[in-house]
Amino acid sequence: MSERVVLAYSGGLDTTVAVAWLTEKEGLEVVAVSADVGQGGDAEALRERALQAGAIDAVVVDARDAFADRYLAPTLQANARYQGKYPLVSALSRPLICEHLVAEARRFGASSVAHGCTGKGNDQVRFEVSLAALAPDLAVLAPVRGWGMTREETAAWGRARGLPVGSGAKPLYSIDENLWGRAIECGALEDPMAEAPDDVWERTVDPAKAPTDPDYVTIGFERGVPVSIDGAPMGFAAVVRHLDQRAGSFGVGRLDMIEDRVVGIKSREVYEVPAAAVLIDAHSDLEELTLERDVLRAKRDLETRYAELVYEGYWFSPLREALDAFNASTQRYVTGSVRVRLEPGSARVVGRQAVGSLYDVSLATYDSGDAFEHGAAEGFVKLWGQRLRTWARAHGAGPGEEA
Amino acid sequence: MSERVVLAYSGGLDTTVAVAWLTEKEGLEVVAVSADVGQGGDAEALRERALQAGAIDAVVVDARDAFADRYLAPTLQANARYQGKYPLVSALSRPLICEHLVAEARRFGASSVAHGCTGKGNDQVRFEVSLAALAPDLAVLAPVRGWGMTREETAAWGRARGLPVGSGAKPLYSIDENLWGRAIECGALEDPMAEAPDDVWERTVDPAKAPTDPDYVTIGFERGVPVSIDGAPMGFAAVVRHLDQRAGSFGVGRLDMIEDRVVGIKSREVYEVPAAAVLIDAHSDLEELTLERDVLRAKRDLETRYAELVYEGYWFSPLREALDAFNASTQRYVTGSVRVRLEPGSARVVGRQAVGSLYDVSLATYDSGDAFEHGAAEGFVKLWGQRLRTWARAHGAGPGEEA
Amino acid sequence: MSERVVLAYSGGLDTTVAVAWLTEKEGLEVVAVSADVGQGGDAEALRERALQAGAIDAVVVDARDAFADRYLAPTLQANARYQGKYPLVSALSRPLICEHLVAEARRFGASSVAHGCTGKGNDQVRFEVSLAALAPDLAVLAPVRGWGMTREETAAWGRARGLPVGSGAKPLYSIDENLWGRAIECGALEDPMAEAPDDVWERTVDPAKAPTDPDYVTIGFERGVPVSIDGAPMGFAAVVRHLDQRAGSFGVGRLDMIEDRVVGIKSREVYEVPAAAVLIDAHSDLEELTLERDVLRAKRDLETRYAELVYEGYWFSPLREALDAFNASTQRYVTGSVRVRLEPGSARVVGRQAVGSLYDVSLATYDSGDAFEHGAAEGFVKLWGQRLRTWARAHGAGPGEEA
Amino acid sequence: MSERVVLAYSGGLDTTVAVAWLTEKEGLEVVAVSADVGQGGDAEALRERALQAGAIDAVVVDARDAFADRYLAPTLQANARYQGKYPLVSALSRPLICEHLVAEARRFGASSVAHGCTGKGNDQVRFEVSLAALAPDLAVLAPVRGWGMTREETAAWGRARGLPVGSGAKPLYSIDENLWGRAIECGALEDPMAEAPDDVWERTVDPAKAPTDPDYVTIGFERGVPVSIDGAPMGFAAVVRHLDQRAGSFGVGRLDMIEDRVVGIKSREVYEVPAAAVLIDAHSDLEELTLERDVLRAKRDLETRYAELVYEGYWFSPLREALDAFNASTQRYVTGSVRVRLEPGSARVVGRQAVGSLYDVSLATYDSGDAFEHGAAEGFVKLWGQRLRTWARAHGAGPGEEA
Repeated sequence: MSERVVLAYSGGLDTTVAVAWLTEKEGLEVVAVSADVGQGGDAEALRERALQAGAIDAVVVDARDAFADRYLAPTLQANARYQGKYPLVSALSRPLICEHLVAEARRFGASSVAHGCTGKGNDQVRFEVSLAALAPDLAVLAPVRGWGMTREETAAWGRARGLPVGSGAKPLYSIDENLWGRAIECGALEDPMAEAPDDVWERTVDPAKAPTDPDYVTIGFERGVPVSIDGAPMGFAAVVRHLDQRAGSFGVGRLDMIEDRVVGIKSREVYEVPAAAVLIDAHSDLEELTLERDVLRAKRDLETRYAELVYEGYWFSPLREALDAFNASTQRYVTGSVRVRLEPGSARVVGRQAVGSLYDVSLATYDSGDAFEHGAAEGFVKLWGQRLRTWARAHGAGPGEEA
Repeated sequence: MSERVVLAYSGGLDTTVAVAWLTEKEGLEVVAVSADVGQGGDAEALRERALQAGAIDAVVVDARDAFADRYLAPTLQANARYQGKYPLVSALSRPLICEHLVAEARRFGASSVAHGCTGKGNDQVRFEVSLAALAPDLAVLAPVRGWGMTREETAAWGRARGLPVGSGAKPLYSIDENLWGRAIECGALEDPMAEAPDDVWERTVDPAKAPTDPDYVTIGFERGVPVSIDGAPMGFAAVVRHLDQRAGSFGVGRLDMIEDRVVGIKSREVYEVPAAAVLIDAHSDLEELTLERDVLRAKRDLETRYAELVYEGYWFSPLREALDAFNASTQRYVTGSVRVRLEPGSARVVGRQAVGSLYDVSLATYDSGDAFEHGAAEGFVKLWGQRLRTWARAHGAGPGEEA
Repeated sequence: MSERVVLAYSGGLDTTVAVAWLTEKEGLEVVAVSADVGQGGDAEALRERALQAGAIDAVVVDARDAFADRYLAPTLQANARYQGKYPLVSALSRPLICEHLVAEARRFGASSVAHGCTGKGNDQVRFEVSLAALAPDLAVLAPVRGWGMTREETAAWGRARGLPVGSGAKPLYSIDENLWGRAIECGALEDPMAEAPDDVWERTVDPAKAPTDPDYVTIGFERGVPVSIDGAPMGFAAVVRHLDQRAGSFGVGRLDMIEDRVVGIKSREVYEVPAAAVLIDAHSDLEELTLERDVLRAKRDLETRYAELVYEGYWFSPLREALDAFNASTQRYVTGSVRVRLEPGSARVVGRQAVGSLYDVSLATYDSGDAFEHGAAEGFVKLWGQRLRTWARAHGAGPGEEA
Repeated sequence: MSERVVLAYSGGLDTTVAVAWLTEKEGLEVVAVSADVGQGGDAEALRERALQAGAIDAVVVDARDAFADRYLAPTLQANARYQGKYPLVSALSRPLICEHLVAEARRFGASSVAHGCTGKGNDQVRFEVSLAALAPDLAVLAPVRGWGMTREETAAWGRARGLPVGSGAKPLYSIDENLWGRAIECGALEDPMAEAPDDVWERTVDPAKAPTDPDYVTIGFERGVPVSIDGAPMGFAAVVRHLDQRAGSFGVGRLDMIEDRVVGIKSREVYEVPAAAVLIDAHSDLEELTLERDVLRAKRDLETRYAELVYEGYWFSPLREALDAFNASTQRYVTGSVRVRLEPGSARVVGRQAVGSLYDVSLATYDSGDAFEHGAAEGFVKLWGQRLRTWARAHGAGPGEEA
């Protein structure tokens, strides 16, 4: 009996050809595994195509709620945005897919798993590192990285074997999407000075064409996770779909950036993330109301690290676990609601409230009713500046050019 | 002869009464000093009022270019935003004012300086720490913090002495502004769930009422400082004024946040910063194109620290000097131009270019012409994941719940 | 009936006089509370002295195990050393004492608590911030900080009232000690260039007089906490006492440093911490064997923050809780044993082992049996240097002076 | 005419065989380049051996002072120790050697450079990344990594060609050394629980056999660089040699650690660094006296990053340049002297002084003459704890288990 391989199957040209390639060139029985993480598409058609390409079996898992609850929730609690911008759309789905690859490999008795990534992107890293962490005993195959065919050659190779591949005509863009957003690469976007063409956008309207009547949405959070929209309870996945549509209609969530990839090169990336943008802004605003200053500062520093490690493929790492433990400790207090004004081109937080709010109007007010001890300030400021006073005395009048 | 004090004079109720108070209660001769940092207003009227209140002399300094070139430029190079948001409007003008307070104190032979801040804000800290660093020998007086009068009592005290103070009617908001933006506090804003009323905004239109025809602006940078708009050379202060008007007309630059003050309380703050928002976004985008990944990451971490120390009054500190040295080293390469689309509610970077660009299309492209060594990736990914592979083997299949 | 105050009582001159002062000047009934955190001394004599000074009651709590298990254990897991050196001896006992002050205040129905700290040290900060966090409703009195008497005057005031105070002769040093170490200040130590005299040391011999026969000790850890010495199970407090004696006899654990106090001044401090020094070195060494690189690096950064916050009085803070959660996540794997060579002047780790060791001799060896894939290194190194290769090409031959 | 390659030549088995290998297998003319960075050895003998092995030319550069002044000095200013311990001995010499490889490649018109590192160590990374930064146009060859011969086979291959190689008997340890220290690997050290045998140590005596009469040494620093010993002016390289001998005679500077290599594995490393240990301790102590608290804290965080980047091969990087700029700004004030007690097993700083000292005895003293404003402390402490007071009120009595 042949050995088996479990292939992460997307239904595109590369993975469809990979089914046949692994069968023909490596002599393996291929099990195709796909996960629905909100990218849309017809699961049954996907299965059919894999089988048609020669897979001995094909599995499509509905992972949408798992994706929201186990991946997006901790990532939102971490306000994770790579380079302060990109909310890790693709970087989050890969480890989840790997969980299913490993589970199916065990079920089917496979000795290896395979993915369809090329050699210069981030996803190969995320697949292989996740697999190393989950199942170091399984071999990993990357046929696309190795076969050295151009897109056209790949299509020809497939057509020659009757595979369900199209013409091999290069699509305008390379797109990956899921519940948390869309990532668009290549084509016209490879010139970093050229504006992204209108046709890259699907979830957002042009802000210049957005409704001129603002819309207000109130997002309820419990322990750092959204649980309601305008007072109506809602699961996380539903919240994301709701906000994607609603904020997208105002043109919110378009990103255009130069990104440092894991493999050491810079790339130009365009993302479309209406819900993610609104949720992260609202969540971090609520934290400003409910988290003590020092914990907030420490958490903000760690958020950068969190985004980096997820981006770089280290989801299944002890550092992510430790950061999640840190975050979980802080999120006990992040319960409340945030009011957002949807207006053309932006979703601005305009109000927030919380039971455990640390905003104390009796301390903050400049009005009568002021409970703040003004006298204490004099002593405070004196010692706050003591170090610089000593410094100035030790070095003449001041430390720098003003001296 | 009486001793002299140099007072930071704004022309408002508190500092006008302070002139008389310091004269009457402390027996001092008061020299009023004001700095024009772009807040507008009539310098001569300001001088008149101070003299009318009893100052023995009054000085108004035009510090607009100095403010832009010596304060805003390094702050922009640092992309400094407190809590990732507030671009330090008021925190930047205080140290500059202190430079002039000290210079005038030396010129007039004063033995003390005075400010009109209350005991719960940040500005008392910025004044007193800056003064400690610049002139530790000078005493600092804070009459407003100490006199214990309500606003109404203050006005009455002034009117009783014929000072040029108004009715003492509380203004709707407490506002501080300069070239870099406006800060609005108090009144209706003290309820953090209440949306800021329309009348707080002066430099921005409602995004819902912005022009529906987008506008494109190209900002040229040299070593991290803006030097041109759409190709036309322009000084920093002029760039700021230009962008303030242009981006403001699209409703760009409204901030609403909960802020951690130096004195240990949270406050709700509203800011209006069209030019600052556009410039910081454009500048940091250009850095993503021109700075190597590790220097970019280290700089981003330090930017947070930079913003905190300026916010907390430590402008004249050896840490700011050292951070400026770090930043200056990095900014040698931040020369290029950034194209921004002004559209309702947002100013989005849509293109960027630089002579020293680190984006290499021959490496990044998925097209033919690809110079990237795909084969190297296999080895790279293998060692990139080595630590987690070892980890997984040491602890069973994986580090966490997935094990 | 008079109101009551609970006083943190040490038995020294200041707090003994404070009993009488609070009674006489403030009209309060004083309850004296002391905690045995390993500083030695006779509990009953301490109670007697407090009562003799006029306390209506006196409580001495044996808190040694609680101190070890609830304070020293998480601090060791954090390898917390302020400025990388001082293991927080006094900073750790204050919050524990505050727990007891509050508990006794509740039991005795007191409306305030009091401490005997002066105005320039760190301990006032630790007491008052801990009390603010534990019982913000209780008033805090600091009679010593306020009374303005010199040491001699204080003693005279006490003698005049028949209090059990000595001559008031200034002791050579000001000393605070507990299970975790001794802190010595003042006197001859105030000249930072003068070597600490021999008589400041009590727990350590001069390394030059240490035994010339080395001693080996093996410390067993479970989840980051010591549980055995040379194979013999032992509680944490017992481990500390054991190592203090054993390492002290080799002259290990003398510290001499310039320290930045919370109140903005530098002071010269001398510490004696044999057990703490050995345990932190051994624990962090075991972490190097058992923690994955990224989690180790992130933890090391946070250890600095941990030490700072404890030093600065923020033990009872949400940040410490979040850091403890982070640390607890990491310490699940820190189980193993460390072999330390005690030799004159140093305690060097010379061996370590762990069930969950991440050291894989088959990867590390340069011998035959090498399982490392050398071929992968070529690709790895190529991409590892890709960013600098691109940098060099963009800027001529190299980034700097070497170009 | 054959193409030329410049080989980093050490005189050992691998690089000696590499000369012949590159000539025979690659058809290249080999120029051997060696740098004297303080490792000792006879330059002329080294040249002879290279020529004997077939090199067309051989160059030995005396780089000792350059190594001290251009590499060790900034590294000492950064107090750089990888994992807080290892002072980067080998990691510092590789980039210097690469400077010479590139210079000789230009002089000899070579099209490639070569090194003799294997595939699992750090040095291949340092060589190749340095070369990528200095000369991205030059090809890099790593014959030893690729040839797949065991040590014995290598020696046999060489002997068969009459090369000056010995028996190929495996040495007990793999050693690399230079002015800054010695690194010892392999053999008996591969068991992390086994103590390093006595014969690994060359620069240090066993502390148990050290003189029992302590010795005092005073090190003078100017701007963070040592310039004198006991008052006698001395260049950096001479200071290092002096202290190596003097501290080594007391058994100071033995390190034993588990280290995370760049390639993702942990290794056990033993180092011997008497001078480096003393100098870094003394230098950082002087910084505690002369640097303001915030700049000290920021610098300490960056020191970790500095050590990592040098360790990982990024010496010629814009981040190192920016960090050096930061450090240079701080070191302007690090001028003074430090007194160190050499005693068996340790070199303890026991005194320090500086013209720009920030230690102010009039502020620090508990004696009469105290200039510190005790009254200010009350207000300071109140606001210092304000955030936790608010926190406690918002969440009941306290944040945690104590509530």
